[in-house]
Order: sequence, then C-alpha cells, then structure tokens
Amino acid sequence: MRQWLAVIAVAVLIAAAAPADAVEMRGTGTLGVVIERASGSVLIVDTTARAAIGRVDNLGDLSHASVVFSPDQRHAFVFGRDGGLSKIDLLAAAVTKRIVQGGNAIGGAISDDGELVAVSNYEPGGVRVFDARTLSQVADIPALGTDGRASKTVGLVDIPGRRFMYALYDAGEIWVIGFPGGATPRIDKLTGIGKLPYDGNVTPDGRHYLAGLFGEDGVVHVDLWQEPLRARRILDNYGRGEERLPVYKMPHFEGWAAAGDLMLIPAIGRHELIAIDKQEFREVGRVATYGQPVFAVVRPGGRHVWVNFAHPLNDTIDVVDTMTLKVVHRFKPGPAVLHMEFTPRGHEVWVSVRDANKVQIYDATTFAKKAEIEAKAPSGIFFTARATRIGQ
Amino acid sequence: MRQWLAVIAVAVLIAAAAPADAVEMRGTGTLGVVIERASGSVLIVDTTARAAIGRVDNLGDLSHASVVFSPDQRHAFVFGRDGGLSKIDLLAAAVTKRIVQGGNAIGGAISDDGELVAVSNYEPGGVRVFDARTLSQVADIPALGTDGRASKTVGLVDIPGRRFMYALYDAGEIWVIGFPGGATPRIDKLTGIGKLPYDGNVTPDGRHYLAGLFGEDGVVHVDLWQEPLRARRILDNYGRGEERLPVYKMPHFEGWAAAGDLMLIPAIGRHELIAIDKQEFREVGRVATYGQPVFAVVRPGGRHVWVNFAHPLNDTIDVVDTMTLKVVHRFKPGPAVLHMEFTPRGHEVWVSVRDANKVQIYDATTFAKKAEIEAKAPSGIFFTARATRIGQ
Repeated sequence: MRQWLAVIAVAVLIAAAAPADAVEMRGTGTLGVVIERASGSVLIVDTTARAAIGRVDNLGDLSHASVVFSPDQRHAFVFGRDGGLSKIDLLAAAVTKRIVQGGNAIGGAISDDGELVAVSNYEPGGVRVFDARTLSQVADIPALGTDGRASKTVGLVDIPGRRFMYALYDAGEIWVIGFPGGATPRIDKLTGIGKLPYDGNVTPDGRHYLAGLFGEDGVVHVDLWQEPLRARRILDNYGRGEERLPVYKMPHFEGWAAAGDLMLIPAIGRHELIAIDKQEFREVGRVATYGQPVFAVVRPGGRHVWVNFAHPLNDTIDVVDTMTLKVVHRFKPGPAVLHMEFTPRGHEVWVSVRDANKVQIYDATTFAKKAEIEAKAPSGIFFTARATRIGQ
Repeated sequence: MRQWLAVIAVAVLIAAAAPADAVEMRGTGTLGVVIERASGSVLIVDTTARAAIGRVDNLGDLSHASVVFSPDQRHAFVFGRDGGLSKIDLLAAAVTKRIVQGGNAIGGAISDDGELVAVSNYEPGGVRVFDARTLSQVADIPALGTDGRASKTVGLVDIPGRRFMYALYDAGEIWVIGFPGGATPRIDKLTGIGKLPYDGNVTPDGRHYLAGLFGEDGVVHVDLWQEPLRARRILDNYGRGEERLPVYKMPHFEGWAAAGDLMLIPAIGRHELIAIDKQEFREVGRVATYGQPVFAVVRPGGRHVWVNFAHPLNDTIDVVDTMTLKVVHRFKPGPAVLHMEFTPRGHEVWVSVRDANKVQIYDATTFAKKAEIEAKAPSGIFFTARATRIGQ
C-alpha cells in the first residue's frame, strides 16, 4: 500500500507540475518590457490586457538600458550599462542566458535575420557580436581609429543585409560592419567625419544614418543607398551653439521622429523641436515646446508627435500636430515622465512616470487615460513590435 | 486496491495528457499562413525555421481569400469568398470559431485596437462587423447608396481610431465607419465619387485612401488628415483607356507599393509600372516590365519593388530599383507565381508558385534561393507582422 501511495504521489506530483511547467500559451505580439532601473529588474507587460504579467530581477545596472527583440518576439535582449547582456524569455518570465560582455556598454542591436546581436561598448570600446541563440561570441571588433587608438562606440543600429552601423566617439569615424556569410565581418570605414559623434540613428527605412556631434555643431549624414558611401555634413547650426546654452540632457537620437516628409528633432538647450525636410535635410520650421525636448516619438502613421522634456520640466507631455507644427494638447502625467511607447498601429501610448512609480496608458486619439500599472521607478518601455522594424 | 488503481490511472492520464494539451510554447512573431485555395486549407508556417508547422482544413472557398491577424499575433482571421469567416489559432493549428456571415464576400479588416473584425460583402452587400474574440455580430451596415439601392462593397481597410473605410461599387460612394464608443457606428459618406469603384486601399501611414474605378478611367483620392473629407480625382489616365486593352487581371490595390517619395502602381493592360509622386499624386515615370503587373510589393525599407505578372507571363518576377526605376533582376521561379510576402525587416521574401505546389524562399539582398516548402497550389501568403501595420 505504501508503495502504491508513493506511485500515486509521484503521479499526482507530475500532474500538478504540468501547469507550472506549461507556461500559459499566448501570442507574443502584444508583449513588452518596462525597465525598472533602480531595482535592476524589468516588468513584462501585455498591451491588450493593459497589465503586467511578470517581472525578471537581477539584471544589473539598467541605467540607459535598451532592449531589442528576437524576430519571433519571444525573447528580449536587454543591454545594461554595466556591459551585461541578458536574454529574457517573455513567455516564461525568466532569464534564458546572461553574460557580462564588457565593462561599460551603451546599447545594442539585432541583425535583420535575427541571428546576430551586437553590443556597443564604452569600455573596452569597440563592438562585440554574439550568436542570438546562445550568446556565444561571434566577433570582437575593436574600434581602432586611423590614429591607432581604441575608441568608444555609439549610435549602433541594424541595417539591412546582416549589417550594423555605428560611430567611433573618440576617433570621429562611422563604420559599417556586415556578415554576408558567417562570422567574418566585412568592415567599411568613413573617417574624418567630425569631432566626437555622441549618438546616431538610422531612419525607419534603413536608408539615412545620422550622427550628432558633441565636439562641434552639426550633424553627419550617410545615405546608405548611394555608392560609395560618404559622410556629408548637414544642419550646421545643430548643437549647443555660440551661446553654449545650458543643456540639461543631450537628446538621444532615438527621439528623432520621422513623420511624412518631415523629421522633428529636439533642439539642444532650447524649448523647441526643429522640423527638417527629409529630402534635403534642411531646417524648414520650429515648434515652440514646453521645455527642452528629450524624446519626440511619432504616433505610428505620423499624424502626431508626442514630446517629453528634460528636468526640471519633465512632468509634462506636448502633442504636436505634424501638419500645422502646433502643440494641440499639453498635459501633466506626473513627476519624471521618462519615456513613451506606442502600440504598433498607434491606438494607445504607454508613458513611464518614474517618480509616481506608474506606467500610464492613454488613448492616442482622444488623449483620455485608460489605465495605469504599478512599476518600480519605470524608465524605458519597449514593445515586441520593435522586432518588425529596421533600426529597431 | 481496484479503487487505488483507478485513482492511479486517472492521475497517470492527467500527467500523460499534459504534453498533448500543451501545444509547443513559441513566439508568434515569425508565424504566417499560406492559402491553399484548391483544397480549402491554410498552411501554417514559421519564417525563421523556413518550414510548415501545421495545416488547417475545411475553410470553404478560399479563392481571393485574405487574412488579418489579432494584435497578439496568435490568431488569423481568414476571409473566404463564400462569406466564411474563420478564426484560426496558429499555436494550436485549429479553428477556434467559424461562421458564414454572408453569401459572397471580398475581404476584411481588423480595427486598430484589435477588437472589431469587419467583412466586406458582395452578397448581400454592405459591411458586417464582429467581435474579434467571439465572432458575434456587433453591427450590420447595409450599403444603401443615395439612390436607396443596396451596393456591393470593396476596398475595405482599417484606419486609425477604431474606424474602417470602403467603397460602394454600385453606388459610387466611399464610406468611413467609426466605433468611437461601443457598437453604434458613426458613418461618414462621400457620394458621387465616380463610376464603379472596384478596389481600394490606404497608404501605410493611414492617411491617403485610393480607389480605382472600373466604370471610367481615373482614381479617387481621399486625404484623411483634411477636414471635411472630400474625394478628389487623380490620375485621369489610369484605367483601360480609349484603346480598351485586353486586361488579363485587374491589378489589386494591395499591389500598390509605397517606396520613399514614390508609389509604384501596376498599369492596367500594359507591361508597365507607373511611378506616382506621393505628394501630388501625379505620374512622374514608367517602368517597363516583363508582363502585366499584378502585385508590386515593396521590400521593407523601400529599396526594391518585386513584381509578378498576369497569365500567361506569370512564371517570372522582376525586381525594380526604386531609385533608378530600372529592373535590376529578372528570374523565373516557376509556373503561376501568385503572391510574394517579405519578412518584416525585408531580409527574405516568400513566393507562392502555385503550379509547382511550392513556396520558395529567397534572400532579398543576394536573390539566392534559400529554401522551398511543399504546399498545395499555394496562393496568398500572409505573415503575422501584418498585425503591426495600419491598413493591414
């Protein structure tokens, strides 16, 4: 009898264990993660349920953390400031694999085929490339400028054809690395592009790479559809200017919104967005805003751009009409609005309000608040639909 | 003892059942469906594995079938020609729910919040709207033109703000229906727009609705960012023209590719694509092609457009460079190339070759064939990334 009871116990245990092992079956198209910087954790969210569905801890230093997704939208790759690269299973709410690949990192990217993950390093500099499945290293590409010295790298993005593109901060260069067949990179270098490129990004079509300069005013532009590649200076007045205005936060290039024929980019040190013609990359207008813009995030489709601001005016969001270049709605979600992320077809927008420990969800058409979620000092919000975008 | 054995048996059965019930856990971002028209089935595919992972049968008449996806990318809604609306669970490879909502239907759409599915009917005409979860009917909107007669509807698409837009074939009108709060539609009508609109589509930004006319030459354009809405005639020469050229297949408006500042649209009855300026909607050039174009599908990012052709030249694909408007690659996948679908970041393209019973997969950068999959007379190919697109 004892024996049978043992068998029964085992069988019952197996049966009981099944639901725990079998994580709820669900689609992954409406999942996302919210960075909780102070606690080194990420919250996993479901945008349809407007709810958190899990949390993953022990991810290290998540200041300036960024996230990309596997093409199947099951896994998130979290790039920490401390060089940590964590692969998270969103369905299991668990770390699949975690490595510390450098001493100080500043973001990463995933190749268009989803096979390669690249990380941009301040320390030791350069870019390291990993197999997206295993996180084993595929390539280590030091950023040695023409002067032979190692450089920090910034503005790393994926571009079509198993390629990545980034700028060398110290050396003032822009590199394109490609992996046409396997692990050996092909490297194309543009040298002498300007002083101290501090960030960069590619337009959503993967065509135009833009890098901002910290060492002088101006922006560097590379048209990836022209051969040979060349770096061209545009927007000669873009920067801190002669007056050396106080800059509370250098705006990230992720905050450059492309809407229709315009780009709306944060001015530096001023309460303005600058409207840029996407053909000629010339300034065509300015939008007066509430504060110094940090992110200018376009609603999918391009009708509006939502803008948040640097400290101390970071309790407010402006919504700008991209046809009239006027602010059509201004409101105060709460203290320390750090990031905004739209659902893929733009019907709702999620807003992290760090010092209220909340993520708020707004109807993007009516501007009505629809829900809010508790989160620990939330900063970046990243939805899995990014997996479908060039330069995600 | 008998009693215990029964308990054990039950326990073991529960344990054994778990794996069968627990369909393989996977992300849904790389899934898709291939229409197998002749057999009334769809093949479920995984684009990363480049493989079929399931088949769902008994879906009725799938000629001209089209597919949209739930935001979480777990479910596909298949619109059959016979009025059938089937909700398919891609993870379980099973029909979740199937209704026959009309006698003869021509496609459908899903609202930007994923809550409403609309179907365009030839018979009995009009549009019916269903709850995306249950497929229970939310609204039945007959298409009664100003003359009071029931009209067929065509060119149904989703537009931002829980709205849909479509044309009335017999009445020559364009309607916008919105569901701002619940099940009661708000209807905006544009009347007298031209004779017999036969198809329509919206640009990827959700701004410009375009409908082709069968009863006269020309295209109707509605700019959804202008108020009040008005229908404007563009492209006065677009149509069969004075010569009444033999037209082997009226090109669908789904085949209008938007690339950068251009749209490349199939000419009617001619071996040409017409290049249209996206600002003014004026013709700015022509591309000589191998045959009468059916679909002109843009590679995500817009660098190339891939074009297939009407019978009897339907064994060939042209790849057109959108900067030079030249054919840069021409090849013959095989007999009856019916459709092409790109992976979301455009690294690969899937091609249905109906009379070879194959779906072929090409590298979009090198044009090399990477794999092929057996399918029964495949036609339309639809990937879940469509869930992220306005006017999916």
